[in-house]
Amino acid sequence: MEKLELLYEGKAKKIYRTNKKEQFLVEYKDDATAFNGEKKGTIVGKGALNNQMSAIFFQMLSEKGVENHFVERISPIEQIVQKVKIIPLEVVVRNIAAGSLAKRLGLAEGTALRHPVVEFYYKDDELGDPLINDSHISVLQLATPEQLQQMELVSLKVNEILSEYLLTRKVLLVDFKLEFGLTEDGKLLLADEISPDTCRFWDADSKEKLDKDRFRRDLGHVEEAYQEMLKRLGGEVLV
Amino acid sequence: MEKLELLYEGKAKKIYRTNKKEQFLVEYKDDATAFNGEKKGTIVGKGALNNQMSAIFFQMLSEKGVENHFVERISPIEQIVQKVKIIPLEVVVRNIAAGSLAKRLGLAEGTALRHPVVEFYYKDDELGDPLINDSHISVLQLATPEQLQQMELVSLKVNEILSEYLLTRKVLLVDFKLEFGLTEDGKLLLADEISPDTCRFWDADSKEKLDKDRFRRDLGHVEEAYQEMLKRLGGEVLV
Ligand SMILES: Nc1ncnc2c1ncn2[C@@H]1O[C@H](COP(=O)(O)OP(=O)(O)OP(=O)(O)O)[C@@H](O)[C@H]1O
Ligand SMILES: Nc1ncnc2c1ncn2[C@@H]1O[C@H](COP(=O)(O)OP(=O)(O)OP(=O)(O)O)[C@@H](O)[C@H]1O
Ligand SMILES: [Mg+2]
Ligand SMILES: [Mg+2]
Repeated sequence: MEKLELLYEGKAKKIYRTNKKEQFLVEYKDDATAFNGEKKGTIVGKGALNNQMSAIFFQMLSEKGVENHFVERISPIEQIVQKVKIIPLEVVVRNIAAGSLAKRLGLAEGTALRHPVVEFYYKDDELGDPLINDSHISVLQLATPEQLQQMELVSLKVNEILSEYLLTRKVLLVDFKLEFGLTEDGKLLLADEISPDTCRFWDADSKEKLDKDRFRRDLGHVEEAYQEMLKRLGGEVLV
Repeated sequence: MEKLELLYEGKAKKIYRTNKKEQFLVEYKDDATAFNGEKKGTIVGKGALNNQMSAIFFQMLSEKGVENHFVERISPIEQIVQKVKIIPLEVVVRNIAAGSLAKRLGLAEGTALRHPVVEFYYKDDELGDPLINDSHISVLQLATPEQLQQMELVSLKVNEILSEYLLTRKVLLVDFKLEFGLTEDGKLLLADEISPDTCRFWDADSKEKLDKDRFRRDLGHVEEAYQEMLKRLGGEVLV
């Protein structure tokens, strides 16, 4: 596999073209941002930790029948993925009220939700990734009703698989964000990443945060939280 | 019909108990507010104008089969309505991008939408009436899926009836907000008001605003716009 030119540098990852037309190389960075890019920093070793955690989650999901873009982890900070055209929506699934949901609905952070809540956000940095509904998605033609339904179903399945697994590791899956894309032949595929950057993980007993909220809210021990998560997933932390 | 004690004073209306158990008396006020009560003012004669316009719209909707709370206009600023328990949701239907939709989706004000957009807002002043989705409504148990579907269907029917009628009066129905409630025996009824306070009306030719945006945005000629709307609806403007 050859690493060819950089196609896109995001806030957390770089996407490279490869010699295979239908595959990209993703390089995970140590850079961290929050609040739509307003807060910037570095979490030492995050690239390698997230590359490994994303790989573990995507592999687990493949085994459980959730098709996704992951192909192979090829170095500490690099993985090969199937190329897709990303649908400009972020799908958020929530089990416990936190962050913007707690604010929006006036719920105390930590309130258990009576059923998982699914939200769609419009991926548009200039607009600040606003919450939108099915009617907005339809009028902007961001996805077909069928794609939308499939994204919601797959997201709820991901929630079940990951929640159940994480509980065996003494971790609560509070909420998480997914992205989906379309392959050249129109197939919907789970893509992007699954990591403490994109999920809220709480220790099941102490409710200690083991995710990017430690960075967002200046709680300290950010690197250690990411390392702890990888350990719980059975990965090897190389320091 | 006896006017008994004041039950609730809102920003635009007062609700009184009557000697009929299942009916309320609504008094329309001249008070105007905007931006969740931050901006306050008076629009002279608004109470009488909105009382008349609401009555005209509700009567028209009744004739077209849209059941609603309106019973009878009994004085310049008073009408009798069926008592309901208001569902704490505002249903907004939009035909043309304006206001918060233009901002949320990054559309120029005045952009025609390819189909009507329906939105639900959580009626909660402290939270600033946030946009919410079906999943939020379900988790908060604000309405059943059946009630939600009925509210959406009725709102789209109201949109068709009013849009078509208003066009004959050279007015574009840009968007509007509806509220629904439940009668004692669980029947869903369209309630609250339909007026330039709760709709965006634009002159079909000049696109001049004939609604509360004149007050919100300090465009002047606020009273005249409300009077002009009543004239176009065939009502008698008593000055
Ligand atoms: N399989 C894939 N094929 C193509 N693009 C992908 C794939 N997986 C993820 N991406 C996209 O690659 C980029 C990853 O970079 P990163 O996560 O750093 O972006 P970001 O800063 O979050 O910006 P964005 O707002 O674009 O997501 C994102 O735009 C993501 O949607
Ligand atoms: N048929 C009805 N039965 C009972 N309550 C009604 C009925 N129609 C409207 N209402 C309620 O009466 C109040 C009308 O007052 P007004 O419109 O001034 O309220 P508001 O200041 O907008 O406040 P709110 O946030 O409560 O709507 C609203 O709360 C409205 O929901
Ligand atoms: Mg990203
Ligand atoms: Mg009101």
